[in-house]
Amino acid sequence: MKFVTFELNGSDTWGVEVDQRVHFSSEWTERYLSLLEFIRSGVRIDREEVSGWESVGYEDVQVKAPFLPPKNIICVGKNYKEHALEMTQQDPGSIPEDPILFTKPATSVVGSGEVVEVHEKLTSQLDYEGELAVIIGKEGRDLTQEEAEDYIFGYSIVNDVTARDLQKRHKQFFKGKSLDTSAPFGPAIVPAADIDDPQYLSIKTYINEEIRQDGNTTDMIFSIAELIAIISAGMTLEPGDVIATGTPSGVGKGMNPPQYLKSGDTMTISIEGIGTLENQVK
Amino acid sequence: MKFVTFELNGSDTWGVEVDQRVHFSSEWTERYLSLLEFIRSGVRIDREEVSGWESVGYEDVQVKAPFLPPKNIICVGKNYKEHALEMTQQDPGSIPEDPILFTKPATSVVGSGEVVEVHEKLTSQLDYEGELAVIIGKEGRDLTQEEAEDYIFGYSIVNDVTARDLQKRHKQFFKGKSLDTSAPFGPAIVPAADIDDPQYLSIKTYINEEIRQDGNTTDMIFSIAELIAIISAGMTLEPGDVIATGTPSGVGKGMNPPQYLKSGDTMTISIEGIGTLENQVK
Repeated sequence: MKFVTFELNGSDTWGVEVDQRVHFSSEWTERYLSLLEFIRSGVRIDREEVSGWESVGYEDVQVKAPFLPPKNIICVGKNYKEHALEMTQQDPGSIPEDPILFTKPATSVVGSGEVVEVHEKLTSQLDYEGELAVIIGKEGRDLTQEEAEDYIFGYSIVNDVTARDLQKRHKQFFKGKSLDTSAPFGPAIVPAADIDDPQYLSIKTYINEEIRQDGNTTDMIFSIAELIAIISAGMTLEPGDVIATGTPSGVGKGMNPPQYLKSGDTMTISIEGIGTLENQVK
Repeated sequence: MKFVTFELNGSDTWGVEVDQRVHFSSEWTERYLSLLEFIRSGVRIDREEVSGWESVGYEDVQVKAPFLPPKNIICVGKNYKEHALEMTQQDPGSIPEDPILFTKPATSVVGSGEVVEVHEKLTSQLDYEGELAVIIGKEGRDLTQEEAEDYIFGYSIVNDVTARDLQKRHKQFFKGKSLDTSAPFGPAIVPAADIDDPQYLSIKTYINEEIRQDGNTTDMIFSIAELIAIISAGMTLEPGDVIATGTPSGVGKGMNPPQYLKSGDTMTISIEGIGTLENQVK
């Protein structure tokens, strides 16, 4: 079961995908106008409830990004050892001792199937980063690692598209990470209860037909629970906050020679049990 | 004339301050439920309109932060030469050639008069940064410097409170800049038309009775127009976006020895023609 935002009769609504069908209910969507409002409500839905709803085929709807994050998307840099090394010509000093945290604005969010702009006037080094995204389900601060799991609504995928030249030139990452359409997010949110072990998921990124990233969330330097504990220290996490947990090795900048994105390229990110996020660069 | 958000009969509303009185109108506040909605509407108000509204004394209302920024607050690092130097033991290489951009989340925003938490379990190096804030009034992207002025709704003040130890430890600035209550914002927004030259404003920060920062916006490395052009390149600016334009020299870290904030300290930031933002650390 997966939560999706999708277009129905020209406007955005939300529902639940089960077995390739999207179920929706005007009773629920009138009460909670968006998936974000539903997550904020604290009310939860089980599979049985959904079985009585109307449904359409998944292939017949246009999926949208689940929602626009209320804070910017909170991102983690260099959270996989092999990726830290590939970004720094194998400098072991690049492996962080504390998480590197930065953000991407809501204006950069697009859904699966939407175009990612090539921004050719601004960058010649556009790159992809496939990442497991954690969606916060309730408000909390100063959470312990033990408490963290209880604050997770579910999981999704973020492609942390990055203009490497801008990232470097502006020192802090925001500019290179914030271009419009540079945060593909989705296609859906899988409830936490449906994921057995979020720290043991295969994560693969393809550019066109070529596999570029072939990692596993078990290789994160800072686990999801550690990230939530560190991020929530002194900063209130809210329902709908999105944490992009970092990317495995295999980004374009790490290749020899580097292979950056060009117009026409299709980026496909699949995470085991979560789904597939696909976007074309144009 | 200044736009303010304030508490009236237990709930937040907005109005216009003229000559130490806050004017408000239920006709306007029912149409635009918050100052952010009003700014987004594109409708503008002149002094004559306001003269027919109800009013209360400015001293009799509890001022709140103008609004919570829809994107995180967009901040500029090291945008005054003397500040870049004081932060780096006078390293001339620290003067940026491109703006250093990072963000502070909405959860860190408080209004003038509200408490700034000392966060003593997390940091022993809490510091202040008085800054001129630019409030965007309409949507735009890829703006030229010449167009920039037309996209400014008005000006305000942000205190970019920073935990220096977290800022350093996490490499990217977000963690050290994002603690709850670390973004005092306000007390009001002055419409752009009421500020003769935003690049020639005195900006002073006092800690208790001692003057610490005594700068002028004329000393910005990147002007407001340059910042808007660079930030809006490839990233859509929206009404209500807040750009904190950087701080002059005189922060606690730059003193010899450094003087960090402690419980009981009062931070007072005054910008010529804009107002005074005052917060106590506790």
